[in-house]
Amino acid sequence: MLAEAIFTGTELLLGQVVNTNAAFLGEQLAAAGINLFRQVMVGDNLERIKQAILEAKERADLVIIGGGMGPTEDDLTREALASALGLPLEEDPEAREHILGFFAARNRPMPRQNLKQALFPRGARPLPNPLGTAPGIFLSHQGKLYACLPGPPAEFQPMLTQELLPLLNSYRRQQEVIFSRVLKVTGMGESAVEERVRDLLAGTNPTLAPLAKTGEVHLRLTARAPDTAAALAVIEPVDREIRRRLQDYVYGADEETLEEVIGRLLAAMGWTLATAESCTGGLLAHRITNVPGSSAYFRQGLVAYANEAKIRLLGVPPEVLDRQGAVSDEVAAAMAAGVRRLSGTEVGVGITGIAGPGGSTPSKPVGLVYIAVDLQGDIQVRRELFQGGRQEVKGRATNSALDLLWRRLRIKAREEGSKNPSSPWCGPRS
Amino acid sequence: MLAEAIFTGTELLLGQVVNTNAAFLGEQLAAAGINLFRQVMVGDNLERIKQAILEAKERADLVIIGGGMGPTEDDLTREALASALGLPLEEDPEAREHILGFFAARNRPMPRQNLKQALFPRGARPLPNPLGTAPGIFLSHQGKLYACLPGPPAEFQPMLTQELLPLLNSYRRQQEVIFSRVLKVTGMGESAVEERVRDLLAGTNPTLAPLAKTGEVHLRLTARAPDTAAALAVIEPVDREIRRRLQDYVYGADEETLEEVIGRLLAAMGWTLATAESCTGGLLAHRITNVPGSSAYFRQGLVAYANEAKIRLLGVPPEVLDRQGAVSDEVAAAMAAGVRRLSGTEVGVGITGIAGPGGSTPSKPVGLVYIAVDLQGDIQVRRELFQGGRQEVKGRATNSALDLLWRRLRIKAREEGSKNPSSPWCGPRS
Repeated sequence: MLAEAIFTGTELLLGQVVNTNAAFLGEQLAAAGINLFRQVMVGDNLERIKQAILEAKERADLVIIGGGMGPTEDDLTREALASALGLPLEEDPEAREHILGFFAARNRPMPRQNLKQALFPRGARPLPNPLGTAPGIFLSHQGKLYACLPGPPAEFQPMLTQELLPLLNSYRRQQEVIFSRVLKVTGMGESAVEERVRDLLAGTNPTLAPLAKTGEVHLRLTARAPDTAAALAVIEPVDREIRRRLQDYVYGADEETLEEVIGRLLAAMGWTLATAESCTGGLLAHRITNVPGSSAYFRQGLVAYANEAKIRLLGVPPEVLDRQGAVSDEVAAAMAAGVRRLSGTEVGVGITGIAGPGGSTPSKPVGLVYIAVDLQGDIQVRRELFQGGRQEVKGRATNSALDLLWRRLRIKAREEGSKNPSSPWCGPRS
Repeated sequence: MLAEAIFTGTELLLGQVVNTNAAFLGEQLAAAGINLFRQVMVGDNLERIKQAILEAKERADLVIIGGGMGPTEDDLTREALASALGLPLEEDPEAREHILGFFAARNRPMPRQNLKQALFPRGARPLPNPLGTAPGIFLSHQGKLYACLPGPPAEFQPMLTQELLPLLNSYRRQQEVIFSRVLKVTGMGESAVEERVRDLLAGTNPTLAPLAKTGEVHLRLTARAPDTAAALAVIEPVDREIRRRLQDYVYGADEETLEEVIGRLLAAMGWTLATAESCTGGLLAHRITNVPGSSAYFRQGLVAYANEAKIRLLGVPPEVLDRQGAVSDEVAAAMAAGVRRLSGTEVGVGITGIAGPGGSTPSKPVGLVYIAVDLQGDIQVRRELFQGGRQEVKGRATNSALDLLWRRLRIKAREEGSKNPSSPWCGPRS
C-alpha cells in the first residue's frame, strides 16, 4: 500500500510550529508496512489543499491529511476533500451528537460553527475522537483510501494508532512489516564507512543507508517481511557482516548512545570516572550524566577554565603551563592524571583546547584540542583540529573524548574478558 | 517572491529524524518577506526528487532543496536538479579545492567520491560551507531560482541565513520587508504571559505570537513595511508596551540568550563566576561557556556528584549532609558558598536535586531541585519541583538557575546603575 501525507496549516509553513506529526506518522506507517513516499505541507488555503489532494491520489493508494479539521474559517480540509472528489458534504447525525455531547459534558455553550465538524463527504465515515470535538474522516472512493485527522498531536497521534491503522488493516493487500535497526559508528567519517560497506548498499532487503551525525555515522538497516521475526532473520546476517567489517567502530545500535555504552563498560568493571574540562566547558560531564544511573560510576567533573584552577585543583605544574601553554598535550595529560588523583577514580579524562572565536595564536588555531584519557596511570593523548564555530568545536571535542574513552575501556574490558568470558561487556554490542 | 521547499531523505519519511530545518526555513523566509507556500518531503530517490523539482518550478519563483548533498550514493540532489533542468554537471575548481583542503586540514585521505561534491549544474554557483565538505548550489535558470543546501541543521541553517538569504535580496521583486523581533521571557508561563498581552494579540501590524520554549516564552513581533526602518517604527511602540507589562521577565530579544545577558552583566560589573552542580551534571557550566568570551568571567565549574566531592572540595559540612541529605536548601547554599570560596569569585551558584529516574524518596521525589546563588556572601535559595524525565529535569533546573542568577545580578546592576547611570548594563535590553 503506497501512501502520501498532506499536512495543512499556515503556522507550519511559517515555522511557528514544528510538525511533530510528520515524523510520528512516518514511524507508524513504516512499522505497519505502509510505504509513505511523500509528505506535503500546505497553508490553510482551499485551492492549495485541493490541489495537493488531487496530485496525491494520482500516485498513492492512501492519502492521509493532517490538520484543518477545526471549526474555524481557516479549517478547510473537509471542504477541500469533498471538492477534490466532487462529493457533497452531508451532516452525520452521530457526529452531531458527539459534538453536542462534548460541549454539554463541559457545561459550555456550543458555538454554531462547531456543527461544521459534523459534515462529511458522502460515503465517508467518522473516526471517533475522544479527545476533541473534531471526528476524523475515513473514505474509500474509486479504489483509493482517504483519511483526515485533526492537527493537534494529542488528537492526531491516538486517532492514527487506535482508529485509522486498525481500520487500514482490513484494506491491506499484503501483510508486511518494515523493521529497522540503526548501527552506530564512531571514529570514522561517512565516506570512509561507506567505502567499507559499498557492496551492501546495493541490497534491497534489507536496505542499508548511511546517515552522518555530528561525530558519528549511523547505518540504517531496513527489512520488509511478513512479521518481525522474519524481518530480524533478514537483518541479522547483514548486521553481523557490517560489525565484522567495522568492528572497532560500531559502538552500539538503535537508541544506545556512546555515553551509555561507556557507562556499561565502567559499571561492568566496577570502575569510576572523573573529568577535567577546559574548552568543552562541562559538555562532557553533561553528556556522561545524561545516562540514568551514571552517579554509580561518575565521581566528579571539573571545568577548569582559569589556569589557577588547573594548577591548584588539578596540580598541573605551572612550569608546564609556562613552557607549553594551557593548550598542549602535556597539560591535557596532567589534567587527566590530576582529576583522577583528586577524585580517587580509576579513570580520568582531560580536555584542553581553543573553542574560539578568541584565544588563538599562529601556532595554536581555533579548533585545536588535546584530549587525554588516564586509565589507572596509563595515559594516552589525542590531538584534534576541528572546524566550525564555538559550539561545533565543543561538540566535536566531546565526541572525540567519548570515542577515545570508549576505545580504551573496550580494550581493557576485552583483556579482562579473555580472563572471564562470561562478563557482560563481552556481548556482541560492546 | 513565491517559494517552495523540498526536503530529501528516506530517514525523514520513516520518521527517524524530525525535520527541524523545515520550521527554521519557514521562520527565516517569513522574516525575509518570502512567501513559502509549500514544503515537500521525498525519499532518496532520483525520480521522485526530480518530479518534486519539476512540480515546484511550475508554481514557484524559488525552489529550495534541503538534503542529499553528501558524497554517498543516496545523495542525489545535484543529479536530480541537473536532470530536471536538462543541464550537464560540471566540476567547479574552487569547490574541488575546498574539499581537498577540508581533508588536508585534517590530515585525512579523501575518499574519491567526495569529489562528487564539486559537481554543479552548468551556470550554478557554489554556496560556501565552512562547516562541511558539501558546498551549497545556487542557480538562476529561465527566470526561476534554485538553491540546494546540505541537510545537517548545523550546515543548512547557517548557509541559509549567511549565504542564501543575502543573495536572494538582489533578486527580490516586491519591495516589502517582513521584519520580526522576538522578545524573550524567563520565569513566567505561557498562559500567564498571554494574559498580560492578550489585547495585543489581536494586532495585525505588528502581529504578536507567543511561543512556549523550555523554560522560556518567546513573543514574536512581526511587521510588514516598505523597509526595515519603517518596520522598526511599527514594532518599537508595541515592543516598549510589552516590556512595560513584563518588565521583570523580558531578559532579551532575538538571538540573545539568557547566558549571554548574564555574561554582559558580569563583565560590566567586573565580577567572576563559579558553579557547583550536582543533578544538572555540568549543563549549567556548558551553557555559560557557550558564550564567546565567557573565559573572562567564568573561573571554574564543579560537578560534584559524590558526597565526598561536596565535602572535600566544597566544604559542605558532613553533618549537614547527614541531617538534611544531599538534596536540601542547606546543601545547595553550602555548595554555592563553597565553590565561591574555592574559586575566589564574587558569584557562586550551587545546584542539588534528583534528576531521576532513581534516587527519590517519599519526602524527596524525582524533580526536586534546590538552587542557590551567592553574591559576595549574600545567599538566596530557590526550591523547584519539576516534571519530566532526567533530561527535562536537568534542562529546567539549569534554566531556573540562570533565571535566578539573572534576576539577582540585574538588581545588583541597577543599584550600581543608579550610582552610575552611564553603565552599559542599564540599556533597555537588560
